[in-house]
Amino acid sequence: MGASIKDVARRAGVSVTSVSRVLNGEKYVSQELLDKVNRAIEELNYTPSHIARSLKMQKTNTIGIIVPDLTSQFCSTILSSIEETASAQGYNLLVGNIAESMEKELRYLRVFQNMRVDGIIVMHQKFNQDILEFFEHASMPILFSSVKGPSSSYLSVLIDDYQAAFDATEHLISSGHEKIAFIGGDLADITSGFSRYNGYAEAMKKHGIEPDPRFVKFGDYKLPSGRRLMKEMLGEDEWPTVVFAASDDMAVGALNCALDHGLKVPEDMSIMGFDGSLITEVVRPAMTSMQQPVEELGKKSVEYMHHMIVNPEFTFDSDIILQHRLVERESCRPRLAHA
Amino acid sequence: MGASIKDVARRAGVSVTSVSRVLNGEKYVSQELLDKVNRAIEELNYTPSHIARSLKMQKTNTIGIIVPDLTSQFCSTILSSIEETASAQGYNLLVGNIAESMEKELRYLRVFQNMRVDGIIVMHQKFNQDILEFFEHASMPILFSSVKGPSSSYLSVLIDDYQAAFDATEHLISSGHEKIAFIGGDLADITSGFSRYNGYAEAMKKHGIEPDPRFVKFGDYKLPSGRRLMKEMLGEDEWPTVVFAASDDMAVGALNCALDHGLKVPEDMSIMGFDGSLITEVVRPAMTSMQQPVEELGKKSVEYMHHMIVNPEFTFDSDIILQHRLVERESCRPRLAHA
Repeated sequence: MGASIKDVARRAGVSVTSVSRVLNGEKYVSQELLDKVNRAIEELNYTPSHIARSLKMQKTNTIGIIVPDLTSQFCSTILSSIEETASAQGYNLLVGNIAESMEKELRYLRVFQNMRVDGIIVMHQKFNQDILEFFEHASMPILFSSVKGPSSSYLSVLIDDYQAAFDATEHLISSGHEKIAFIGGDLADITSGFSRYNGYAEAMKKHGIEPDPRFVKFGDYKLPSGRRLMKEMLGEDEWPTVVFAASDDMAVGALNCALDHGLKVPEDMSIMGFDGSLITEVVRPAMTSMQQPVEELGKKSVEYMHHMIVNPEFTFDSDIILQHRLVERESCRPRLAHA
Repeated sequence: MGASIKDVARRAGVSVTSVSRVLNGEKYVSQELLDKVNRAIEELNYTPSHIARSLKMQKTNTIGIIVPDLTSQFCSTILSSIEETASAQGYNLLVGNIAESMEKELRYLRVFQNMRVDGIIVMHQKFNQDILEFFEHASMPILFSSVKGPSSSYLSVLIDDYQAAFDATEHLISSGHEKIAFIGGDLADITSGFSRYNGYAEAMKKHGIEPDPRFVKFGDYKLPSGRRLMKEMLGEDEWPTVVFAASDDMAVGALNCALDHGLKVPEDMSIMGFDGSLITEVVRPAMTSMQQPVEELGKKSVEYMHHMIVNPEFTFDSDIILQHRLVERESCRPRLAHA
């Protein structure tokens, strides 16, 4: 475990408070103090982030959260669950909505750091070099919620997206569907893009069904892309019997397109979503969806973040994997019933 | 205009930087310095907040925003517009979701202050004594967006909610409706509760129509309350020909309830919403709604906030009132067509 903040202070010949001021990036610190402390840190061969983490810093009782897109039904649903638990635990939640921009993400991460949040929850799954470096040198704990972190050094609280998409597809197959369309997300997104597509593809393969390339399309998780891709499919001379979308928003877009084209759902075509956002119960017919346990996801994310904040020595062996669950509503029916 | 920060520094016999440190609440400030500066401030008879405002404080390029409820379709719609303009102007937006709690609002206001945001945008319209005092003594500009501030000392960017509800109701009357139900918000909310109800009531009165008390109900702007109140109405032995709800979410709740009861909308009953959130285009039939100019509302809110931040002497004569607009979609039709 090695040296503590006290060791650094002793080596530098200054007080613990002074070391703390340097590590906290206080503005009015003399060059002399800065040099002394930095030299001690180097001599003790400790990275500042390591030391900063083990410091009993003044808490702000604030958690920053990076949200990919607030207009996403899933984001607002889970955010509201995270807010509830955070509030119950005495934390204020500062939301940075990055509108899917990595540039904005980096800016918000830095704002959070400058504002000395106690920890950061990240719900975005795209990383560039600058972002990865920020995570690596961050002086506060970072936790990934509903997405997979960039490496096993980071704790992620999420479902098994591959297995969930696999189970959803297998459910459709076992209820008689073969022409199963898939509307996926960005394959560069490991969690909700690649893993969900892969689950679909592997379930099809296991049952010896070749996906029809006309019916495998990729959008951006948002409603308009689901509508657009469904329109493309309806332009083909034969149609799938069911469309499985990798987000509820895209599923609703597909549903609207089908209804606007005069199709009856689920009589003429079934549609299934993914996520478990509130919108599934708002649309008519209500949307069958492979759901993430939204409440538990929010709760566990904040609970683990809290553990990491109060105990800098907190370690973990593996990600926290929560259970997915297929919730059947009205938008989906067995293929047998179509006959 | 009187004394400047320099006067305080001169009176205290310290540097401007030192005064600034005290006013900014820096942690490592000696008791001696604190006493000197505070004495000078007292002697010059200036409140710290007054001085703090006129200080060229270090900008954080951050705006805090108090959001009543992130799961509200209107909130997430307008927030995304505010975020876009803020980002284009170089501001980061920190979102505090208060879930309609004044206690949480006060907490977030204080967090924003501690974090030295450059300004605060408030979208909540309930105030208690502590919140009012916070506003009064705040060292950064406060602006109210889509709601009316507590007094004319605060700038509000919003529509004329009374007139919008009046116009919506008059539109329904002029298209032949008389049995016009109203689902309102909390009458204690001046902007979206009282003003919208009042607009409805006055338009009815102007046209000599007595509102049927069975068809005037009040919810909490959220979807489930619209559903519940519609259910109550459908339990009566006669029904309104149109339901006008003071939020799109309540209108969608009413729509779902009607559809689930086997009614055809708009054939059997028309439904009209209020706000112009994205959900109006998601549901089927798409929702006719008295819309706020969401994009302009977000844009103007940030623009005026920016003026107030860069120019502490910024003054205004009146609120910024934007134009409402009735957007007709499929959920509403003239009464004549019902005959």
